[in-house]
Amino acid sequence: MRTDCHVCRSEGLTPQSRVLLRAGEREAIATLHQVESDLLASDQAGLSEIAWERLGVDEGDLVYASHPRPVESLSAVRRRIYGNRVDEPSLQAIITDVVKGSYSDVHLSSFITACAAFPLDLDETIALTKAMVDVGERLTWSQTPILDKHSVGGLPGNRTTPIVVAIVAAHGLTMPKTSSRAITSPAGTADTMETLAPVDLDLPAIRRVVEKEAGCIVWGGAVRLSPADDILIRIERALDIDSEGQLVASVLSKKIAAGSSHLVLDIPVGPTAKVRSADAARELASRLSDVAGAFGVQTRIIVSDGTEPVGEGIGPALEARDVLAVLQGNPDSSLVLRDRACTLAGALLELGGVCETGRGQSFALATLNDGRAWAKFQRICEAQGGMRVPPVAKHQYPLVSPGSGLVAGIDNRKIARLAKLAGAPESKAAGVYLTTHLGTRVSAGEPLCILHAETPGALHYALDYAAANPDIIEVTAE
Amino acid sequence: MRTDCHVCRSEGLTPQSRVLLRAGEREAIATLHQVESDLLASDQAGLSEIAWERLGVDEGDLVYASHPRPVESLSAVRRRIYGNRVDEPSLQAIITDVVKGSYSDVHLSSFITACAAFPLDLDETIALTKAMVDVGERLTWSQTPILDKHSVGGLPGNRTTPIVVAIVAAHGLTMPKTSSRAITSPAGTADTMETLAPVDLDLPAIRRVVEKEAGCIVWGGAVRLSPADDILIRIERALDIDSEGQLVASVLSKKIAAGSSHLVLDIPVGPTAKVRSADAARELASRLSDVAGAFGVQTRIIVSDGTEPVGEGIGPALEARDVLAVLQGNPDSSLVLRDRACTLAGALLELGGVCETGRGQSFALATLNDGRAWAKFQRICEAQGGMRVPPVAKHQYPLVSPGSGLVAGIDNRKIARLAKLAGAPESKAAGVYLTTHLGTRVSAGEPLCILHAETPGALHYALDYAAANPDIIEVTAE
Repeated sequence: MRTDCHVCRSEGLTPQSRVLLRAGEREAIATLHQVESDLLASDQAGLSEIAWERLGVDEGDLVYASHPRPVESLSAVRRRIYGNRVDEPSLQAIITDVVKGSYSDVHLSSFITACAAFPLDLDETIALTKAMVDVGERLTWSQTPILDKHSVGGLPGNRTTPIVVAIVAAHGLTMPKTSSRAITSPAGTADTMETLAPVDLDLPAIRRVVEKEAGCIVWGGAVRLSPADDILIRIERALDIDSEGQLVASVLSKKIAAGSSHLVLDIPVGPTAKVRSADAARELASRLSDVAGAFGVQTRIIVSDGTEPVGEGIGPALEARDVLAVLQGNPDSSLVLRDRACTLAGALLELGGVCETGRGQSFALATLNDGRAWAKFQRICEAQGGMRVPPVAKHQYPLVSPGSGLVAGIDNRKIARLAKLAGAPESKAAGVYLTTHLGTRVSAGEPLCILHAETPGALHYALDYAAANPDIIEVTAE
Repeated sequence: MRTDCHVCRSEGLTPQSRVLLRAGEREAIATLHQVESDLLASDQAGLSEIAWERLGVDEGDLVYASHPRPVESLSAVRRRIYGNRVDEPSLQAIITDVVKGSYSDVHLSSFITACAAFPLDLDETIALTKAMVDVGERLTWSQTPILDKHSVGGLPGNRTTPIVVAIVAAHGLTMPKTSSRAITSPAGTADTMETLAPVDLDLPAIRRVVEKEAGCIVWGGAVRLSPADDILIRIERALDIDSEGQLVASVLSKKIAAGSSHLVLDIPVGPTAKVRSADAARELASRLSDVAGAFGVQTRIIVSDGTEPVGEGIGPALEARDVLAVLQGNPDSSLVLRDRACTLAGALLELGGVCETGRGQSFALATLNDGRAWAKFQRICEAQGGMRVPPVAKHQYPLVSPGSGLVAGIDNRKIARLAKLAGAPESKAAGVYLTTHLGTRVSAGEPLCILHAETPGALHYALDYAAANPDIIEVTAE
């Protein structure tokens, strides 16, 4: 709105003020930005895409702008700041207002900080999880058990999900898996899976696939499970703080909303992973189990090695290639990726009662080796709308070793950046394919990795970055 | 920037991302908003007014956009969240980054919440105050003592400052007072004073006035005292939390930066005031005195009645009228305003050694009664650039009582809103002038207050609001 418009002046609306917009029965809460140019007339407001959508208005429609009503639940946040526990009704009110958009970033950050400074206890964590489940959609299934898996702070390239679902579903166990798209990484599981089959399924379509094939691997965005989590997680990422209570509520609210009854949680531990010590992993595991138990969800926690990335591909199609290699039993497939998938799938087979405890991993491996998992995966892809061949990038360009020696380091953060500059995840085929591993001996001029890009422009961005960062893959003379 | 621009894509910049902008040697940190329309070309960025200014760029100039460097001091904020005390160097680093604009609202809110959830101790409060002083300008004076006053959470219409300065300076004591403009209220002290004399003085001009007349009443905005406070206070207001440590650092950093050696602090206590109980006032007073003492500043704390507004005028010129009435000894001047001013001025006279303890208030009253304060005030106005006659609004319209009875309630929040709808503080002459007080007997049709407005439009906004809110001034039948 214009700085000099009468609404801003009389309401005392200043830049960054929260503004309640009303159009008919519909409302949206917005953050005010002011202009002084004639981009807008003094009785006009410009809206963001989301506000147009929420208000259901068209250009020229009348919109009322005023101070938003006071947000009652903020008094519970203030009480929490001052060291008082919050009860279930207060957390319900807070999360309801968060999802309505009544909390600004300032309020969200304060709530998250208060829950970290004075950690949520078990009761509060259960109440928060319940509140987060209650404000979203909830799936119910007639089958039982409903299996699910989740990795806490996944590693680059760690695409076990499609393999795990294929193995588990091959045994007739129900595993309706919803995954996310990349936010800051070069590929999310949903991005990778989309190069193999459609993932943008609505709820009736998901049900049809699961009815027919027992498992699915779809994008969770079309189903509104735990919408509060999407809002809170953006702020947690900005603050770079992980409070245990928030993490537990975040993970479990989505699984409970998805109707899971049995859950395998993978906690990779490593110096650059989300969980950095075995002690921290044990503590987190115990809180996760306790809270899940309160909702009748049985959990199995697997603490895994989080010291290095998994597989060779980084980018949707290149990661899909790794997944296919494992499913097809390709001799050059990644053993690390295969073994991780079998550990997780094995735990689910045990939880699901398919085999006795301790035999799950070998059952899982057998399901891969005799082609049942691959056959099941193809049927799932058909049921989701038809199997696809992952695209291959038009431009492929090797980054070669400047000298002879040993591969001494791979910078995961910079490799991810390189893949994104090459176009991932928007360009499905784009990314980086590693042709070496830590400890590999290479000679001068030998490729260390292959850049994949769909346009010469993207290839150049990636090459410029690689030239400016010779330490992405470090080779040291022996 | 456009959602599809190559910088957003390759850097992974999403809406609300923090972005470092560079142009030559200059930098600014901005929050990203994305557009999908052709408002911008894919290699263009639109900037806010402040960003244009900070970067010193013109339309068509080249600007580099990237992820901002990691903000090192955020690790100190994270440590504070997890219950560790922060030392002086960490607080210096935090406040330096805050003033540089490196903290987003999310980070600012987290810092403020962490300081409230686990209150700052005395050492931390002193270190924070010092850090806030160090990042701004600092005034030094050859005179001594340098007197100052501050009201913690002032009441509507409580314009004691011009009167206090006039009394104190009339005794030859040095009182270089800087005041603020209204942010959410219908008038700040600087807005009121501006109707009587120029207040927009730079530092050399302030020195000339103080050299000549011992006192001044100017706008603090031209002098960059405690710039961190302006940033933090916006977030504290949004959160509606007052942590004692932040409040103490906020008040004292400005006074220390202004070079004050002796300070009178007014703490109004009342159910709707900032400080709500005598106990809370005592605790705050003791922390204020201790921290001020660490910087060699002597303080006197006055706990005053904060149950109702002071004076009749609401709006810059109307409040100036109240101030003039007291200074000129006008028989219908507000006794409450006069007595409050004399209490504060009296404490300063005692602190400044003009009279012995206990005699300050009567000294102050005598200075008003014999015209010395009024004479001094006129000379100060002349020295600031010439005394002015406060403007009178073109449109004046009484709001009359609907029936006979007693004035049973005046809603301060709504009266302030009414004054703002009438145009205050942008229209200096606009506002509301109360013609009744709590407990006054009125008959039907008798004016309760007079609306003052410069335009028919503003008058109508105010009248519409008054019609919709018959409880602004409540009259009950006896």
